[in-house]
Amino acid sequence: MNEHLKQLQQWLNEQHLDVVYISDPTNIQYFTGFYSDPEERILALFVFPDHEPFLFTPALEVDAVKQTDWPYPVYGYLDHEKPFALIADHIKQINHHPQSWGIEKDNLSVDRYEAIKQQFPTATFPCNVSRFIEKQKLIKTPEEIKTMTIAGQEADYAFEVGFNALQNGRSEQRIVAEIEYALMKKGVMEMSFDTIVQAGVDAADPHGGPKATSLIKPNELVLFDLGTVYHGYMSDATRTVAYGKPSDKALEIYQVCLEAQQTAQAAVKPGITAAELDKIARDIITKAGYGDYFIHRLGHGIGTSTHEFPSIMAGNDLVIKPGMCFSIEPGIYIPGVAGVRIEDCVHVTDNGCEPFTHTSKALHYIDIK
Amino acid sequence: MNEHLKQLQQWLNEQHLDVVYISDPTNIQYFTGFYSDPEERILALFVFPDHEPFLFTPALEVDAVKQTDWPYPVYGYLDHEKPFALIADHIKQINHHPQSWGIEKDNLSVDRYEAIKQQFPTATFPCNVSRFIEKQKLIKTPEEIKTMTIAGQEADYAFEVGFNALQNGRSEQRIVAEIEYALMKKGVMEMSFDTIVQAGVDAADPHGGPKATSLIKPNELVLFDLGTVYHGYMSDATRTVAYGKPSDKALEIYQVCLEAQQTAQAAVKPGITAAELDKIARDIITKAGYGDYFIHRLGHGIGTSTHEFPSIMAGNDLVIKPGMCFSIEPGIYIPGVAGVRIEDCVHVTDNGCEPFTHTSKALHYIDIK
Repeated sequence: MNEHLKQLQQWLNEQHLDVVYISDPTNIQYFTGFYSDPEERILALFVFPDHEPFLFTPALEVDAVKQTDWPYPVYGYLDHEKPFALIADHIKQINHHPQSWGIEKDNLSVDRYEAIKQQFPTATFPCNVSRFIEKQKLIKTPEEIKTMTIAGQEADYAFEVGFNALQNGRSEQRIVAEIEYALMKKGVMEMSFDTIVQAGVDAADPHGGPKATSLIKPNELVLFDLGTVYHGYMSDATRTVAYGKPSDKALEIYQVCLEAQQTAQAAVKPGITAAELDKIARDIITKAGYGDYFIHRLGHGIGTSTHEFPSIMAGNDLVIKPGMCFSIEPGIYIPGVAGVRIEDCVHVTDNGCEPFTHTSKALHYIDIK
Repeated sequence: MNEHLKQLQQWLNEQHLDVVYISDPTNIQYFTGFYSDPEERILALFVFPDHEPFLFTPALEVDAVKQTDWPYPVYGYLDHEKPFALIADHIKQINHHPQSWGIEKDNLSVDRYEAIKQQFPTATFPCNVSRFIEKQKLIKTPEEIKTMTIAGQEADYAFEVGFNALQNGRSEQRIVAEIEYALMKKGVMEMSFDTIVQAGVDAADPHGGPKATSLIKPNELVLFDLGTVYHGYMSDATRTVAYGKPSDKALEIYQVCLEAQQTAQAAVKPGITAAELDKIARDIITKAGYGDYFIHRLGHGIGTSTHEFPSIMAGNDLVIKPGMCFSIEPGIYIPGVAGVRIEDCVHVTDNGCEPFTHTSKALHYIDIK
């Protein structure tokens, strides 16, 4: 049994649970090595205190599981069958009356929760397994960090492609096309999220996407936020560059944001708290007069998901430890004027941190083409 | 108030609900026109029987909502705030004791369900709003069909690009790169799912993806399954083509699959049931001796999601009506030999159906390059 699964089984024993139902596909991959997006179909892993676990998948996934090194049973179901009746049959072979259930409350939908309660009417659900798994995933192993380092290198390559693709009159969407095409040609199978390219005032919307109607114009800042998936692990990084000579205001907020980012990143080390890191960056931006324009947390955990535990934000007194991986990404967004965000994801070392991405953060000036 | 929202409010009155909580981002778009993927953050629409609805979003989405024509309140929350306490405050301004709640049980996670119950301890949840919404979405309006027709045209263009991109030694992944690059250059912002290109025996795995390590070789079938998103509506289509001269066995299963697809598609008309359509295709494949290799339902509904209600499968006695939109996609998958799937999505007319995609289904032979 792999280490991740062993830890889960041990916790299950400590919590006196009879069965744990893992429903999040990302977590199923973490425990089994098998990834699939089941969409509306059921993909589930059931783990027991003293019996081998089993996977339950759509019939058309069973062969794919068998091609992995998953050593335990996998049961399929056809589209017209009733999955929760079949699941109950398989579980009852192992334990006729599983009383105490662990479920991923952050992921399991209410209808599936009710389907389980219908099959096992006296079942109780004392634990949120999501909380255990997020803590389990919090400290990355050296192998995981090695994998994330490769995803980071792919992000650095994506920046290089994107910067070179800037050209008068090309749309933001076209720049995204160039980036993703170059990555796919290199064999990158998946971006960790929809690539963001925002030019000029578009970058003042921190959750907007690239537009086919927004064209690259001289003398503006251009923001790139992107990442890739490598062997199930994510990269995520942001750079803002100057295409020609941006306005003095744009240059000013760039420098403030850069100082906030670099100061916070330099402060990352074991013993500091998530809230303290957020405050370091926020104080610099507030002191410069832009506090009202930094409207999100400083960062988020990263690993098998782009956004995972912990949030680097006010109120989170979590103490930073070696092996944690998270983003440091202050931003300043002035509607109608400009937007800047600068982001590295880092892994915490014994006395500091190392970023996964190495593209320079000093303002990069790109000649107008 | 738009038609979709009006229908929901009317249903809410019929069901004597005090409030409905819409949590699925796709459905929020359906009711509000505003789309965002909130990831782990909270995006919610609350609808009341006799009061205006409100949207609740992360603070960094509020401006984006205000740029749409959503005429009702939108409330934001910051990352360090407690969203369900804020939601409760907003709701209590409208109804201090909402007793009877409608939630999307297919979408809402157990932790958020429990968060609502914590704020409103006596609340009851008698209805699954998912069932109402899937029925509401089932019959598409002429405008929706027009939008889906454009998404279908984009899929046809994608096939053309993909067929032309086939070349000895290129990987399946590289063909995907060519398709998506060409679409993005045309301004297509999003694929409706990860584009599938599978050559030779790879196509025998009906849920596999393209591989960077699988190369296009002469004299094999190559399967393309793809779609785009146009104004929030999806296309989805599959073609299998011959690159050179495939084996007799591959050609045989192609013809069986084609007959099944065309016969079932020709049978679509108001009054037939979903199960009958599935049986028409399945009987042809079974009679030819390949029934065991057709291991999924005949089709699925399509609209604002790639897979939505109804399933075209055994056991579903739903009567087909004009305006319904779904796929007809039989497949034959023989491990180690070959895989074929042929798919059009159609909309039901008064006396038959019209496909959204028009790429020829007669086996298309592509010269070896």
